[in-house]
Amino acid sequence: MRNFLDDNFLLQNKTAEILYHDFAKSLPIIDYHCHLPPQEIAEDKNFDNLTGIWLDGDHYKWRAMRTFGIPEAYITGDKDDYSKFEKWAATVPYTIRNPLFHWTHLELKNYFGIEKLLTPETAASIYEECTQKLGAEDYSTNALLKKMKVEVVCTTDDPTDNLCYHQAPGSDHFKMFPAFRPDKALAIENARDFNRYIQKLSAAADMEIKDLDGLLEALQRRVDYFHTQGARLSDHGLEYVYSNDFTLGSANNTFKSVLASKDVGEPEALEFKSAVLYHLGQMYADKGWVQQFHLGALRNVSSRQQQLLGPDTGFDSIGDFDQAKALAVFLDRLDANNKLAKTILYNLNPRDNEVMATMIGNFNDGSSRGKMQFGSAWWFLDTKDGMEKQLNSLSNLGLLSCFVGMLTDSRSFLSYPRHEYFRRILCNLLGKDVENGELPDDTKWLGEIVSDICYHNAKSYFNFK
Amino acid sequence: MRNFLDDNFLLQNKTAEILYHDFAKSLPIIDYHCHLPPQEIAEDKNFDNLTGIWLDGDHYKWRAMRTFGIPEAYITGDKDDYSKFEKWAATVPYTIRNPLFHWTHLELKNYFGIEKLLTPETAASIYEECTQKLGAEDYSTNALLKKMKVEVVCTTDDPTDNLCYHQAPGSDHFKMFPAFRPDKALAIENARDFNRYIQKLSAAADMEIKDLDGLLEALQRRVDYFHTQGARLSDHGLEYVYSNDFTLGSANNTFKSVLASKDVGEPEALEFKSAVLYHLGQMYADKGWVQQFHLGALRNVSSRQQQLLGPDTGFDSIGDFDQAKALAVFLDRLDANNKLAKTILYNLNPRDNEVMATMIGNFNDGSSRGKMQFGSAWWFLDTKDGMEKQLNSLSNLGLLSCFVGMLTDSRSFLSYPRHEYFRRILCNLLGKDVENGELPDDTKWLGEIVSDICYHNAKSYFNFK
Amino acid sequence: MRNFLDDNFLLQNKTAEILYHDFAKSLPIIDYHCHLPPQEIAEDKNFDNLTGIWLDGDHYKWRAMRTFGIPEAYITGDKDDYSKFEKWAATVPYTIRNPLFHWTHLELKNYFGIEKLLTPETAASIYEECTQKLGAEDYSTNALLKKMKVEVVCTTDDPTDNLCYHQAPGSDHFKMFPAFRPDKALAIENARDFNRYIQKLSAAADMEIKDLDGLLEALQRRVDYFHTQGARLSDHGLEYVYSNDFTLGSANNTFKSVLASKDVGEPEALEFKSAVLYHLGQMYADKGWVQQFHLGALRNVSSRQQQLLGPDTGFDSIGDFDQAKALAVFLDRLDANNKLAKTILYNLNPRDNEVMATMIGNFNDGSSRGKMQFGSAWWFLDTKDGMEKQLNSLSNLGLLSCFVGMLTDSRSFLSYPRHEYFRRILCNLLGKDVENGELPDDTKWLGEIVSDICYHNAKSYFNFK
Repeated sequence: MRNFLDDNFLLQNKTAEILYHDFAKSLPIIDYHCHLPPQEIAEDKNFDNLTGIWLDGDHYKWRAMRTFGIPEAYITGDKDDYSKFEKWAATVPYTIRNPLFHWTHLELKNYFGIEKLLTPETAASIYEECTQKLGAEDYSTNALLKKMKVEVVCTTDDPTDNLCYHQAPGSDHFKMFPAFRPDKALAIENARDFNRYIQKLSAAADMEIKDLDGLLEALQRRVDYFHTQGARLSDHGLEYVYSNDFTLGSANNTFKSVLASKDVGEPEALEFKSAVLYHLGQMYADKGWVQQFHLGALRNVSSRQQQLLGPDTGFDSIGDFDQAKALAVFLDRLDANNKLAKTILYNLNPRDNEVMATMIGNFNDGSSRGKMQFGSAWWFLDTKDGMEKQLNSLSNLGLLSCFVGMLTDSRSFLSYPRHEYFRRILCNLLGKDVENGELPDDTKWLGEIVSDICYHNAKSYFNFK
Repeated sequence: MRNFLDDNFLLQNKTAEILYHDFAKSLPIIDYHCHLPPQEIAEDKNFDNLTGIWLDGDHYKWRAMRTFGIPEAYITGDKDDYSKFEKWAATVPYTIRNPLFHWTHLELKNYFGIEKLLTPETAASIYEECTQKLGAEDYSTNALLKKMKVEVVCTTDDPTDNLCYHQAPGSDHFKMFPAFRPDKALAIENARDFNRYIQKLSAAADMEIKDLDGLLEALQRRVDYFHTQGARLSDHGLEYVYSNDFTLGSANNTFKSVLASKDVGEPEALEFKSAVLYHLGQMYADKGWVQQFHLGALRNVSSRQQQLLGPDTGFDSIGDFDQAKALAVFLDRLDANNKLAKTILYNLNPRDNEVMATMIGNFNDGSSRGKMQFGSAWWFLDTKDGMEKQLNSLSNLGLLSCFVGMLTDSRSFLSYPRHEYFRRILCNLLGKDVENGELPDDTKWLGEIVSDICYHNAKSYFNFK
Repeated sequence: MRNFLDDNFLLQNKTAEILYHDFAKSLPIIDYHCHLPPQEIAEDKNFDNLTGIWLDGDHYKWRAMRTFGIPEAYITGDKDDYSKFEKWAATVPYTIRNPLFHWTHLELKNYFGIEKLLTPETAASIYEECTQKLGAEDYSTNALLKKMKVEVVCTTDDPTDNLCYHQAPGSDHFKMFPAFRPDKALAIENARDFNRYIQKLSAAADMEIKDLDGLLEALQRRVDYFHTQGARLSDHGLEYVYSNDFTLGSANNTFKSVLASKDVGEPEALEFKSAVLYHLGQMYADKGWVQQFHLGALRNVSSRQQQLLGPDTGFDSIGDFDQAKALAVFLDRLDANNKLAKTILYNLNPRDNEVMATMIGNFNDGSSRGKMQFGSAWWFLDTKDGMEKQLNSLSNLGLLSCFVGMLTDSRSFLSYPRHEYFRRILCNLLGKDVENGELPDDTKWLGEIVSDICYHNAKSYFNFK
């Protein structure tokens, strides 16, 4: 019987313990993809209380509370912060086997030194203790990042963003870079919103956008600007990669038609998106960036809640889209013209792990180590089970040793223990293999590979300033 | 080395043993979905012999026998009952690692106290002993249900059924309720069979059915009648959920065209089905019922055997249909109008577990605990592996603690040990987590959650009379 | 802590050890599907050095090297053999958790008696030792097959092949048979290549091919000829099975149109392919052959590399095609006419394991034991994880005991330890079940089933001369 959440949490054998404690534990964190608000970092904000830093905006917790039968007033509604926290505390004991149960107690332990379980009985004292600490200097956003040994934070930013918060002097302890996420520049299906966005983009790029050439030129200008601000990654969140056949002429017509406030059909929209995505891919390659694709989410499924609460409030799910052929065509099209940037593919449905893990192999061409990456388990899969499946697929079908490892993909300053979670899981898998006689008992060599995956691979792969 | 099928079968650690023996084992069974024949319950039937109660109608066993090379005469053919049993006994030792091997010996042990393995050598004595027992009063259908602590049985009934057997006084020990399964009311693709069915429905509802309004009115009447007889669940067996766009006018035209004995194309059929399913969903919500969807089976694949032996004879398989978008649209359409009933989604392809487990999260809105359910592993997945996968997906992506747990979905009075099987597997998973340090060692609390999943959640969720 | 790659490699419990050492280990190998070159067997070739026998043509190793960042010159390029080997040796330590790491060391051990790990430090001595041995008589291709107890080798041959190498007297120790792989006879989408192929086929069949009847007649002649040379299997490598509706008239028109050098659209191509595949299926049934389908590969994804290096050079991946309905229709169409041959289905995406494992159950009709087979884990899935998943799916959804077991599917004379790998994995799974109390502790009986799966089932299933 092992103890819950002790020093050897998730390390189920001696080799795993050695790999984690001697090699992984102390490494800094390169968080190359997250959704932390740049402003809160630039302003070195302190949070008012535990609800503010922990529950506000956390749609993982919200889903669990709704499932448990908590009314919305206590979730996103107008109840006071402590009442909301109480409802969360009542839910936590019923989240066993969900990653929230682990994350909750890892976060209480690592940030606040609290080893009690969160329950209705402990709710008041935990709230008080954490809220008090959160007011202190060593719990500001920068202090929290320092506490977690974060070396680099890449935020996720719209092309129209002026990146003003990225220009702040920042901390000695970490660097903050923007990352380029132009999803709205592709969202042509809603003419009104899209036109509004094109105006914003026009202003940001300081040029008129009257046709597809103009759009691509404006995007290029913003890529250039982001690059000067240290950006080395782009990101796209898509159901599947757009790689329909297109001509620039026809995509241009579609674009101009939407500029004239006409709605377009799905085939035309896909052709337009395929054209823009292809050209963005070229821009990324020219800049030496890493392009990321987050594939497979079915978003905003509940129209009722979308209307009440807006997007990103916990009403998204895992989709079952076809991925392989579209990806093959998209990547091949760029590769055939020597314009395929380093690429990370993230998928949301674990049934597609093997497709992703073999797809990257088709474009790893020896030009650089681990050029094509199958990204870490993401969003709903950010669990022990999800991470193990991603690590196993990548191991079986590619080279685990070349993996750039974990990112948080989170909106929360308290989510960095997910790196610890990942590192423990990785060390445990390797340790188990050693103890089973499936790997040689050479912890020095395995420790080196662990260090590469947890830190060094990312450092050399992204090549930040 | 553990012993086969002893008291701690499938309980691979001490905590699992405690959870099972102290919390799960003695709880009654609420079998909220099965295919037991109401008549055999109402008449408190005794079976003639072991073949009658165990092999007749059991297409799981039939498939295994056919795979093993047993001629059809010994399966569904005219060989005598003992000869059939002998062939089954010859097959059993070759079913190792298939759930049939476990079920067979659990059933012999739990109903008949037989702990011998079934082999050609033991066939005669086992047949004789069981057949003798089956003649006794304490082996009537009601006695068997009592022996298994069954508290509620929900049968599966066509809307045209008069439910006469559900009105029998029944046993003191359990209640039998009907459940509403209107698959035939949607099966418009075969005009001849469909029209015959509409006539039956017309008679049952005591009204003419001349158009779509009439059909919906007739279905409403049968829903009302089923409700008065205690029905609190509906069920649909579909390849995927029908949620195409429809207008009532166009669906009505399609319906009237089929009433006039014309065949309809697939798009029209889908539009009609989408319309009817949507309206049924509203009826279920209005009644406060639970709607069930069994998704993903590819049925009656062998036309040769279909012709020889009819449907449901063991020639069905797991399909690979797209599920996510259709489900999202269907559920959203009802939810947007506040007409989404409590819902249980069952899927037949384990590759879709994560889609289902996250889909329910989109519509759990805090209105009641566990309103939306990802149903227990079903049919082909009714195995240790299948159950563990469903439990793990649900745990990782939702709240296991709110799960309404196991059902038999069976045609056999001897299938209740599947609840024991489920309970052991559930306790084993939780126990393993505790022993690994992934859950706190608090058996009292975990035992409560186990009891909820095995009994109490279902009791409060279905709210039977 | 177990030792890496010792006698009990992958056997993680006592029962597994007994099953493997007492039952599985010494059995001969029936390699009923591989890609060994018949000429190299007929000529009893010796290889020049370790690079020649081990790296040339091995796209598994090539992919790993490219991922590791090795330039193409050292992979398929013009660098000398030892330089290529050195780069492979540098890659090997970074292949941990990929099957290549196990295969590499199993092959060094079993063929050459080398138990050192391959690293940059050991590269030179291992190369020298192996190269020296490879020159000796007991390392000729025939000697290698004998060393591995290979009893039957089925090569994979085009219908136009004259099979001259299959007529060589061969070795006393094994038999070599051809297998029929007519993929090119279906590849109508490229009119130029297809017409060239039809001319070759015409010459091989010694007849003019002017229409579909002619094509089918020519294929029948080649099936007849292959049969006289001992062929008892056919094989098709397809994204998914072609089973569209077709008429012979329309398929004939399509064929004649392509003969006239016109390109055809996708629907016409699919109709043609469906027609030809259906008729081939009938021919196989008439001959009493076993038909194999390798489904789900997405081939030649990188057009740049395809142009540089040609097909089968390591740029293929796992696809995500729909499989179930097409398979159901195809198999049913043959079965309905009593023309369904014994069939083995191999799938490349593990998400489809359950579809395959239940699909075979639809057509196992008692006519012979294990008539329909779910084939062993294939290509990318040829890993411990992939094999375990296939064995578990087959166990849960069919009868493992009737399985015809492992094949190499390899181009390499050094790949026979994959049978050992399979056997160890199989014994380990069964052993674990016994130790867990999930199977009775009866090693004699389980050993018999192990022997069946490793050897006897294949022997009686294929019925070679």
